[in-house]
Amino acid sequence: MQIKELGETGVLNCIKTHSQGEDSQVIIGIGDDAAVINPKPGFLSLYACHMLVENSHFILNRSTPFQIGYKGVTKSVADIEAMGAASRFLLVGLSLPPDTPAQFIEELYEGIYAANAVCGISTIGGDISDCQGPITICLTIVGEAKAEDITTREGAREGDYIVVTGALGAAAAGLHLVLNDISLDTPEAVQEVLQKQLQPEPPWGKGTTLARSGAVTAMTDISDSLSHNLDKICKASNKGAILELKDLPIAAPAKIVAAAAGCDVLEWALNGGEDFELLACVDPGKLSQVQELMQQNGHDIYVIGRIIDQTGLYIRQDDQLKALSPKGFDHFL
Amino acid sequence: MQIKELGETGVLNCIKTHSQGEDSQVIIGIGDDAAVINPKPGFLSLYACHMLVENSHFILNRSTPFQIGYKGVTKSVADIEAMGAASRFLLVGLSLPPDTPAQFIEELYEGIYAANAVCGISTIGGDISDCQGPITICLTIVGEAKAEDITTREGAREGDYIVVTGALGAAAAGLHLVLNDISLDTPEAVQEVLQKQLQPEPPWGKGTTLARSGAVTAMTDISDSLSHNLDKICKASNKGAILELKDLPIAAPAKIVAAAAGCDVLEWALNGGEDFELLACVDPGKLSQVQELMQQNGHDIYVIGRIIDQTGLYIRQDDQLKALSPKGFDHFL
Repeated sequence: MQIKELGETGVLNCIKTHSQGEDSQVIIGIGDDAAVINPKPGFLSLYACHMLVENSHFILNRSTPFQIGYKGVTKSVADIEAMGAASRFLLVGLSLPPDTPAQFIEELYEGIYAANAVCGISTIGGDISDCQGPITICLTIVGEAKAEDITTREGAREGDYIVVTGALGAAAAGLHLVLNDISLDTPEAVQEVLQKQLQPEPPWGKGTTLARSGAVTAMTDISDSLSHNLDKICKASNKGAILELKDLPIAAPAKIVAAAAGCDVLEWALNGGEDFELLACVDPGKLSQVQELMQQNGHDIYVIGRIIDQTGLYIRQDDQLKALSPKGFDHFL
Repeated sequence: MQIKELGETGVLNCIKTHSQGEDSQVIIGIGDDAAVINPKPGFLSLYACHMLVENSHFILNRSTPFQIGYKGVTKSVADIEAMGAASRFLLVGLSLPPDTPAQFIEELYEGIYAANAVCGISTIGGDISDCQGPITICLTIVGEAKAEDITTREGAREGDYIVVTGALGAAAAGLHLVLNDISLDTPEAVQEVLQKQLQPEPPWGKGTTLARSGAVTAMTDISDSLSHNLDKICKASNKGAILELKDLPIAAPAKIVAAAAGCDVLEWALNGGEDFELLACVDPGKLSQVQELMQQNGHDIYVIGRIIDQTGLYIRQDDQLKALSPKGFDHFL
């Protein structure tokens, strides 16, 4: 069945039948002119928005609709966690060609709701339109945090440790396999990097835990790339950074895939995007307590460098400092 | 200059240079991973989302980018006013082909900011992506209201007056002219209906004033059409309605255009969408005080029928009751 046979009401019914847990802050959910939410007293509200466009952000015969939805939520949660906040509500705008199978919407929402369930998010609304062109999904996420936990990009100070919450390069390795039809004799590593690219886990709890430590001076996520997002922190804070090559936590399956495919895994780790981990600067006197708090909450943390007063990005390899150019994906270049 | 020459940062700079008034609730605006808002204590938050797609919602050589942005805000505000709430914050997701002129974005945002200024809205964030296909704009609007002012579609009671806040049919008349290349010898009326179609004014203050009266039992906007949206109120309230044909406030320029073009103006008034007025049900004992409050605030109000206990929609013409079928635009039929 195609969605043009269901009509708008049929499509909405198909969305509304997906169950989600009760949420005491949701006064009115999907169905009226607007959703109504009771903000948690004493908390600030956070907002981020992502456009996901067919053939720019996903390729239909490479990703399942479930994976597209799941990854969209992961991307949204990364932005909210990057501010030290908890993700709470989601709005989903959809633009679909009339011959889209109804099953696409069902599976897309299954992916959205599955990731929502991991993070405690309720889908509260959205819109749906027809189009003659690529499928476009706009996710708007609403988060909440206490004022004291909000962490921006601009507070990095000289001497701060630079930390990252997970291994690097696997998503870029997966993207390389998705874009180039390569067959490798390393099935487990291939499977792992494809999973990291196509259905990455949301960094749920990582940013909020870091923020709660009270020791984080600046934070962002590395969805664009480690070098690109570190550059954003440094520019916003008017500082520079030195990364230690030996300390970069490069994902094991990315190393295997890079070796098998003849690619540079360091390039993936530094400049590949979509690892959806968090990058934070930590007060050097409080590093051990941050590490302890992350460990208690089951989250990884790796120290990968220091903030310096001089602007610019550098990476140390065998006692040599090399300038590091921030690179990442630009939609228009 | 095309946006592929500006790059993502250039596009963002182009957006950020647009000025907007100070907003004490905006703690962090455009630029970090997420925007941060301080919700007004004691108020609920409202959310609605709209996808605007080239060739489905606008045609580039018929609408200016300014008009597309302005109308998008109007559409968003209509949903929030329909709940009795004030519009406050906006997120803008954009998906644009790389050869889009930079001027398109500038003028689009000028339209958005112009309508924002009318309604007291701050743009707090968004996203931008490239695409190979139609321009797609996703607007997510955030409103706020006291719990007692929130008005849904489901409270209509037998005997309630049905009111509408403005004249009907002009936007549909304008759409007829936009879609059919017709030349009419009624330039003023043509100009007026085109304005109503291409750059309609937001129903700012109309829904909040109605809600504040305490006399409104159900409310929605008539962006889909009078018949379609009245049907939604009736279905949600498990009631029916009788409209009085003689009392329908049909827009004068729509009548002139219909006569000149040989069209049925009543069809436009009942089933044409995008008038962006509000449709409300009013406690019959409090009609005069609602009318007075609307007048004091400079808003029109027209009584066009009554709610009945029996389900179904009817229209009375010359003492004859005829069944009225709810019609409106369905994106997928």
